[in-house]
Amino acid sequence: MSAPDHVIEIPVTFGDCDPAAIVFYPNFFRWFDRCFHDFMHVRAGGHRALCERLDAQGLGLMDAGAQFRAPVLENTVLRLEMRVDAWTTRSLRLAYAGYQEDRLCVQGHELRGVFVRRDGRMAAGSTAELRTALGFAED
Amino acid sequence: MSAPDHVIEIPVTFGDCDPAAIVFYPNFFRWFDRCFHDFMHVRAGGHRALCERLDAQGLGLMDAGAQFRAPVLENTVLRLEMRVDAWTTRSLRLAYAGYQEDRLCVQGHELRGVFVRRDGRMAAGSTAELRTALGFAED
Amino acid sequence: MSAPDHVIEIPVTFGDCDPAAIVFYPNFFRWFDRCFHDFMHVRAGGHRALCERLDAQGLGLMDAGAQFRAPVLENTVLRLEMRVDAWTTRSLRLAYAGYQEDRLCVQGHELRGVFVRRDGRMAAGSTAELRTALGFAED
Amino acid sequence: MSAPDHVIEIPVTFGDCDPAAIVFYPNFFRWFDRCFHDFMHVRAGGHRALCERLDAQGLGLMDAGAQFRAPVLENTVLRLEMRVDAWTTRSLRLAYAGYQEDRLCVQGHELRGVFVRRDGRMAAGSTAELRTALGFAED
Repeated sequence: MSAPDHVIEIPVTFGDCDPAAIVFYPNFFRWFDRCFHDFMHVRAGGHRALCERLDAQGLGLMDAGAQFRAPVLENTVLRLEMRVDAWTTRSLRLAYAGYQEDRLCVQGHELRGVFVRRDGRMAAGSTAELRTALGFAED
Repeated sequence: MSAPDHVIEIPVTFGDCDPAAIVFYPNFFRWFDRCFHDFMHVRAGGHRALCERLDAQGLGLMDAGAQFRAPVLENTVLRLEMRVDAWTTRSLRLAYAGYQEDRLCVQGHELRGVFVRRDGRMAAGSTAELRTALGFAED
Repeated sequence: MSAPDHVIEIPVTFGDCDPAAIVFYPNFFRWFDRCFHDFMHVRAGGHRALCERLDAQGLGLMDAGAQFRAPVLENTVLRLEMRVDAWTTRSLRLAYAGYQEDRLCVQGHELRGVFVRRDGRMAAGSTAELRTALGFAED
Repeated sequence: MSAPDHVIEIPVTFGDCDPAAIVFYPNFFRWFDRCFHDFMHVRAGGHRALCERLDAQGLGLMDAGAQFRAPVLENTVLRLEMRVDAWTTRSLRLAYAGYQEDRLCVQGHELRGVFVRRDGRMAAGSTAELRTALGFAED
């Protein structure tokens, strides 16, 4: 597998967990989102700066999903790797893998678009400029 | 499409939204989970009672996903429909559809198992008893 | 005690609770905020409309606090009452009381200001116009 | 002021912020709670281990409050200091101060008790053993 494009470490705490004493699963999506926003911050000054540069409303979600391989407990650290694994003219796909030590606990993805206002509606615009802004060369 | 097995209405508030002024997407998964738990409450006394009955640790997640069709704004109501749309011996699949008026805003699914402790590890046990407990007749 | 200015009912779910199987306490503040936003929605078209009318950035927090009287469990309903209990020229104070049946479970308050941008900084502006907008007559 | 008993750094992300583009205030309480749980982890093996040692249900909240001095934005880091600033026979009081660079952004407190089950009800038990477990000498 290729090297990740971005990695964050998440200290998992009591309040992230539910009455089953494991991470409440929507939090994994919060962490996916956090990882991508941190990546944008490092690469291009953050979501807001990118939106201004691209004249966009947001780098919003079209689709997200996850597979939960092993429960994650409080007072542990989750290492979350992100890979930009596909570009289309209207979307980018992010792949996530979360590990504890060498154990894969969660896998997931986000499909995002560059949402622009067009004729009073939101629509997915071209990703060409985003691709450049994030430092990905055109093939 | 079949009638939903469960429906909840979610009043969407300011704090559910992000700086783009739309629902922060992990919240949709919170609401999927809420819907299933409310369904368990109505059908079988809730998650805790079900776990005791099934000698299980939890009705946990194996997989979840969503497609975001239209942004959802604060001070609106999301009507969330849930259908139990597939059973296997080790999992049940829940399909979700969230509407505002007649507009489909979000679709999604959860794949859940009956997690039991077996030889010191968590594993997905049989769903047969859960199926009965939730009022679904065997075909 | 005076009649509440606003009341909401909150269905408490599994995901609102922590490994101690009671509501994770920051959620009570989410619900206080929800109550005030719902009140603004009913009285004055919502936070955004109010901000436009008042030329403000937000009706933000200066101070918040809560006393936790009794634990709140999943699959219950919390009835949350809100009273606008004090106005100053620069703030309004909201008092909250959360009940299950007749049992007081949580009490709290928020102190909010009308935040305006002034000389490039945020500052608390006059509450006079807000008071009128929310339907409170001057004494 | 005395040296803090515990310090954590919180990377603030997009999803922690609301439509006003500043931290949604209940999150500060999530971070207070995180800080105390991290402190318990470092000093005494975590909340669960402490509860077993003390035969308690949880180190729960009696009271919490905060004053918000300055808005906190996404893609910044909040340094949160915690001081155990008062013990009574039935409670401990934690004081929090959150900084960005040298600027105080948020102050707050939590009042916590050692909740034990007694005659089928929850009650605040003695803090003497907790005090020892967390490494605080009796005066």
